[in-house]
Amino acid sequence: MGVRVHPIIVLQPQFKPMTCSILSIGDELLIGQVTNTNASWLGDQLTSLGITVAGGSTVGDGLGAIVGEIERLAATSDLLIISGGLGPTHDDLTREAICELLGCGLRVDEAQLRRIEQRFAERGLALNERSIRQAAVPESCRTLANNHGSAPGLAFAIGKCRAYALPGVPMELQGIFSDEIIPEISPEEGRIDRKTFLMFGIPESAMADSLQELNTLLDDALTLAYLPSFGGIRLRAMRNGGGSEAKKRFNALVEGIGRMAAEWIISDRDETMAQAVGRLLAERGLTLSVAESCTGGTIGMMLTEIPGSSSYFLGGVIAYANSLKQGMLGVDERDIREHGAVSQQVAVAMARGVRARTGSDLAVAVTGIAGPDGGTPEKPVGTVWIAVAEGEREIAERFQLGRERNTVRVRAANIALNLVRRLVVE
Amino acid sequence: MGVRVHPIIVLQPQFKPMTCSILSIGDELLIGQVTNTNASWLGDQLTSLGITVAGGSTVGDGLGAIVGEIERLAATSDLLIISGGLGPTHDDLTREAICELLGCGLRVDEAQLRRIEQRFAERGLALNERSIRQAAVPESCRTLANNHGSAPGLAFAIGKCRAYALPGVPMELQGIFSDEIIPEISPEEGRIDRKTFLMFGIPESAMADSLQELNTLLDDALTLAYLPSFGGIRLRAMRNGGGSEAKKRFNALVEGIGRMAAEWIISDRDETMAQAVGRLLAERGLTLSVAESCTGGTIGMMLTEIPGSSSYFLGGVIAYANSLKQGMLGVDERDIREHGAVSQQVAVAMARGVRARTGSDLAVAVTGIAGPDGGTPEKPVGTVWIAVAEGEREIAERFQLGRERNTVRVRAANIALNLVRRLVVE
Repeated sequence: MGVRVHPIIVLQPQFKPMTCSILSIGDELLIGQVTNTNASWLGDQLTSLGITVAGGSTVGDGLGAIVGEIERLAATSDLLIISGGLGPTHDDLTREAICELLGCGLRVDEAQLRRIEQRFAERGLALNERSIRQAAVPESCRTLANNHGSAPGLAFAIGKCRAYALPGVPMELQGIFSDEIIPEISPEEGRIDRKTFLMFGIPESAMADSLQELNTLLDDALTLAYLPSFGGIRLRAMRNGGGSEAKKRFNALVEGIGRMAAEWIISDRDETMAQAVGRLLAERGLTLSVAESCTGGTIGMMLTEIPGSSSYFLGGVIAYANSLKQGMLGVDERDIREHGAVSQQVAVAMARGVRARTGSDLAVAVTGIAGPDGGTPEKPVGTVWIAVAEGEREIAERFQLGRERNTVRVRAANIALNLVRRLVVE
Repeated sequence: MGVRVHPIIVLQPQFKPMTCSILSIGDELLIGQVTNTNASWLGDQLTSLGITVAGGSTVGDGLGAIVGEIERLAATSDLLIISGGLGPTHDDLTREAICELLGCGLRVDEAQLRRIEQRFAERGLALNERSIRQAAVPESCRTLANNHGSAPGLAFAIGKCRAYALPGVPMELQGIFSDEIIPEISPEEGRIDRKTFLMFGIPESAMADSLQELNTLLDDALTLAYLPSFGGIRLRAMRNGGGSEAKKRFNALVEGIGRMAAEWIISDRDETMAQAVGRLLAERGLTLSVAESCTGGTIGMMLTEIPGSSSYFLGGVIAYANSLKQGMLGVDERDIREHGAVSQQVAVAMARGVRARTGSDLAVAVTGIAGPDGGTPEKPVGTVWIAVAEGEREIAERFQLGRERNTVRVRAANIALNLVRRLVVE
């Protein structure tokens, strides 16, 4: 499509990004005992180096499966990163698999043996047979120093594919990758551009409709990805190669998104909702407190996840029981009786109450019916009232946020933060 | 090993567990913008159904790659679970890939269209063309109701492989898998036995050492899996086939765990820490309040995730700023000045303060240094004081919970709940 609209593309020197596969080894990954954070960490690193991650694969601790998968992936990728199976126990078989593939035996790597001896001496531990065996490496492999553990990384080639095998312990994998592999596979200067927006208050499908005409800008070098969650849609524009022509289209794409989706853009800095709101409060020197009923602490948890949030977040009240809405926030018992705990009156009183008691500049309150019980025909499960107070200015809105308890809660928390943002920027 | 010790095993009818592959689709997984929690959730579910997860694979949003990978995995597995690529945008290509594989076109699923209309109506949104297209399904597929989103699950067959395609949104994937797929792939009555314990306060390696002698009971039919997290170690004993002889060993295994690990067992009902504590409070008719500083609402969030938690959880105070510890909990300003906000004195005063102000039976307070800033030589990052108050009885303990902010917070929240449990049961 890009070629038809922009014929100049065909004049650009053909650029073919390096492709990489990631092979993760270990029964613990297959049975769900461990979530594969190594693959996502590697994927992020490789992508930001302009390397196309073509696929990921996970196999268990079986010699045949490992050998077969290395062969299959090496045949279709320029680069292969293998993680796991380099530990000291009988089910660590990656070394043996590489020996079988390369038709070689094991040798002792003297430099690594000295590192292992030193690490054990530093911790006052006696060197045991298992640990010494971690200095054994396939004869045809180059070793990569591991400064965080016993097993060195391994570099080797299968046909035209460059392959690296790393330990599965995240700190060791990340250390070897950063110190030893990145310098070997880094792209030339200026080949990559990335911009990630956070959009809120619009479904993914409607967002895509609004930006439809920008699709004509996209091609292999220029991509647009939608990443929806309850915290909004992350929209990532990325250029990988394509020269100055693609760079122009990248700029046009970013400008087009900024113009056509302006009303939904929360941030263009690859932030979460809580980060964006926190930054805004910090920039303006404002403080925030919360009064949470159905969210039960979720907003506070999201804000305090961020390092440094104490500069703008004071805290607040988890007013789950009505007695706390009255006793700790000063909500009038009559308002609860006449309008219900989930009402505009109570939401506003909660926000005013927590603001007055904490002395914060802004306060946000959430009261709702998260379910599964507690719904009525007038106020079904998913009904949530959110109020924001800042002295004279107040917002209070009613929302229907779905039928599933956790959905209602996480949506409510994100909407509450967005209402704070609206009151600050408007 | 089982065969040698229990020769009767060889007389059992040969049982071959069903094998499954998991295919995850989406550029966001390959580039590391999203960690593949679906694969680990599915791996855990399948394993607990007695199905062997033979491999996992991730491909991007390319039609050819999806088609090729479904074909490859279907050829080697009894069961294939596919996730992702069922959204409404141009890069969601799983439906098209299945059409190509099955040689069919798309049809509109009327039941799903009505569900989508209802969902949009409930949220007061106008139905758009893209969302309607999510009701389009390959003609040769059976649809599986999605009660949490727009795209139905799809069931189909490729050769001898049963395949299911699910949306990548975790809640939708989990809902369809639990409601629709588990009943179809569940093992026959009596083939599986499972018992999942929650252990707390012991590292995985020490737990494994303590239970070492139980390993002689294990074989292909009888397995023991350790699933560690900040909320404790889930220890799952499982029998898959093996007849009455294996059933006897399963009972001996469960009895042995209960006896040898008694002091660390929080629950034998496959519960989280918050669920176990909530059940205990509900059983005894006790109420709880919280005063959270460094956890910032995490304990409240964990407790209120559980439906019905309003019967025992009243709420409390997020006392992130010291001014709130004083103003809303009555902590003495001198205690903060003399002992620091992270001290036994302040933790105890916070617990007493929130208990007095909410009228709860029990109260728990957490104050700590989550980092990255704020540490001192005497109180480095990771220092956390936790106090529980119940009238005359009080506990206050100091912990060192690591160097990473989120680790410190989640560990502290779980330890706080465990201290509540200890005070209740002791």
